Amino acid sequence: MSAQQPGLLARLTRELVRLPGIGQKTAQRLAFHLMKTEKDEALRLADSIREVKERLSFCTQCRNISEESLCEICLDPKRDKGRILVVEEPSTLHAIEQSGGFKGLYHVLFGSLSPLDGVGPSDIRAHELESRVNAGGVEEVIIATNPTIEGEATAIYITKMLKPYGVRVSRIAYGIPVGMDIEYADEVTLIKSIEGRRELS
Amino acid sequence: MSAQQPGLLARLTRELVRLPGIGQKTAQRLAFHLMKTEKDEALRLADSIREVKERLSFCTQCRNISEESLCEICLDPKRDKGRILVVEEPSTLHAIEQSGGFKGLYHVLFGSLSPLDGVGPSDIRAHELESRVNAGGVEEVIIATNPTIEGEATAIYITKMLKPYGVRVSRIAYGIPVGMDIEYADEVTLIKSIEGRRELS
Repeated sequence: MSAQQPGLLARLTRELVRLPGIGQKTAQRLAFHLMKTEKDEALRLADSIREVKERLSFCTQCRNISEESLCEICLDPKRDKGRILVVEEPSTLHAIEQSGGFKGLYHVLFGSLSPLDGVGPSDIRAHELESRVNAGGVEEVIIATNPTIEGEATAIYITKMLKPYGVRVSRIAYGIPVGMDIEYADEVTLIKSIEGRRELS
Repeated sequence: MSAQQPGLLARLTRELVRLPGIGQKTAQRLAFHLMKTEKDEALRLADSIREVKERLSFCTQCRNISEESLCEICLDPKRDKGRILVVEEPSTLHAIEQSGGFKGLYHVLFGSLSPLDGVGPSDIRAHELESRVNAGGVEEVIIATNPTIEGEATAIYITKMLKPYGVRVSRIAYGIPVGMDIEYADEVTLIKSIEGRRELS
């Protein structure tokens, strides 16, 4: 323990550094902020973390974050149960929900295939997706894994896995983001956007 | 409460957004991370915030962060009590301590003068500094407020305030950071570094 940063503050800094995208300097700044801020405000954050860990879990069907065993999307009678959109993480599901562009159900894989890191199909929730398709009623599986090597490999694996079931398997479009100047797009995105071109009618 | 982001996670996101430098996207990412991470790890962070708020306070003399009424620096008999270095925030004190370049005592102002925002001398701990000097034994007050308009105004105010006491008042040097290429320094820093030039012997 150094004289100037008491142990408790050093400990808080260490815990903050574990968060993604938070380096040593930022963690120190946040720790000092929490030290200086209103006690109520800091304790609300602490309680909020605790509650998330103690009361939230995952939907047993799609693995979306949920307070109940089935999430509100899976329980919603208005959702189209014939369409399952596959994502790597709950945060992607959340982003798509916020866009309002999809009214079916989801399937969260919790990762993507990465043989080099020893992540195989049974480490992500691929077979659970197969079971859902096998149970019937699914017309289309829309793959929204990330446009990375792992995401692509996962998309290919799922496509092959679902072939015997005769469901339609599609992949969301990757291309130039709306509002972006084309000249600033990276090469891979440009290639993807040309590959994914659509005929104008 | 939206179907896809349960209330508890939305609440955590809101609490995280209050932290400095954490925007909506980052807060969401952190909330999802805390949801997914090991329960023990997340609870350690929650406990750590709580402990900092419940057990840490400020040194009654210099306002450094401390678990006791006097901080370890003020209590340390080896520190030079004739020299007081004045900073705006405890985090600056911490950075200077880590550098090992100062062996005297500190005085944390908790802010800087900003008349436009209604921050006057009694809102920062200027008069407490005056009392410390008035109590005697202080030879030099070194001002390390930030090189901003407010920091400069504070330095000027303190210099005038302490004039009647006959103590030496100095300001730390501002200039080109060590290791920085001079051509990349901003104009104000260049001007400061030229103003603060020292004769080579």
